[in-house]
Amino acid sequence: MSTPIPSLENLIDHFAALPGIGRKTASRLAYYVLAMPEVEAKGFAESIVMAHSMVHQCPICHNLTDTEQCGICKNEDRDNSVICVVESPQDVNAFEKTREYKGLYHVLHGLISPIDGITPEQIHIKDLIIRAADDVVEEVIMATNPTVEGESTAIYISKLIKPLGVKVTRLAYGMPVGGNLEHADEVTLYRALTGRSEI
Amino acid sequence: MSTPIPSLENLIDHFAALPGIGRKTASRLAYYVLAMPEVEAKGFAESIVMAHSMVHQCPICHNLTDTEQCGICKNEDRDNSVICVVESPQDVNAFEKTREYKGLYHVLHGLISPIDGITPEQIHIKDLIIRAADDVVEEVIMATNPTVEGESTAIYISKLIKPLGVKVTRLAYGMPVGGNLEHADEVTLYRALTGRSEI
Repeated sequence: MSTPIPSLENLIDHFAALPGIGRKTASRLAYYVLAMPEVEAKGFAESIVMAHSMVHQCPICHNLTDTEQCGICKNEDRDNSVICVVESPQDVNAFEKTREYKGLYHVLHGLISPIDGITPEQIHIKDLIIRAADDVVEEVIMATNPTVEGESTAIYISKLIKPLGVKVTRLAYGMPVGGNLEHADEVTLYRALTGRSEI
Repeated sequence: MSTPIPSLENLIDHFAALPGIGRKTASRLAYYVLAMPEVEAKGFAESIVMAHSMVHQCPICHNLTDTEQCGICKNEDRDNSVICVVESPQDVNAFEKTREYKGLYHVLHGLISPIDGITPEQIHIKDLIIRAADDVVEEVIMATNPTVEGESTAIYISKLIKPLGVKVTRLAYGMPVGGNLEHADEVTLYRALTGRSEI
């Protein structure tokens, strides 16, 4: 074997620790970084440190922000009677891209998952209940992913919020737009059928 | 749209600049880095700076190293009568993994490619000619990739080295081990046929 270069191995290890990056890709990325001009490599390193120190969770909705409160929570044009509950900050971006939703968000930063040892206390459910108890809130939309963990988290939270007299809704299930009936799984197709609407 | 966070966007840009990393993957990696413990994120950033400052090219073979000369060039057990010419440091690792090759290497750091504006002067050909001119060198193995650029670079170099009285060889072409005749392209199959050997 070629003599290993510790600093290079260390860089490969760091890349390989990222999700979806295997050892071969990590090695390719590390060699690419080494071939960069020094100023670019330093810029990359600084961007990691900067982003990590600047970005934090909004104290209200737990979305990521670099200001005290996030842009959505402090925007007075948003409808504060609706809260959309999502798993991660990326989900907020997905909804914002539709440009249709004008309410607020609440980011759980995880889902209840006994198998992975994630209990309701470890995600931001308590804060959500406190927010939902505010008289101004009329509806909480459970927009967790349609997976086992997403479903059970949605049900768990809805049981806590309903007694507060707040309407709790769930995203519609059905065929994705542009989807193919032939490739749809049975559960999705069944849900699309039972949730059908008049045209 | 959600208010953009400049430091996060900057981090995403840096990830997206890496080869094979699209915008969506870059975003996923950036969010993952933000969710890391601070010490881990700093470690990642430092590993980039460290690797970039420690690792440099060996003055003899241009392989990457963190010592003055690379481990292969300074290893006296290696056969210095053979030089294997490759495109990149990764190729050296690939050969070393076979544990069969005991000679030296020469890393070109690129291939001649007029389309991309890469001329023979921009890759380490001149150093290779000087090395090959040494009386101790008996064979130069052209191990560039079997692509158009790899082929033409191999031919270009062989024309410069042959007049020095040094044997120039090329890697064998043929079926990859474990390959499938049905899926082999015509050129590979033709080469496998013309290069056949008695059993």
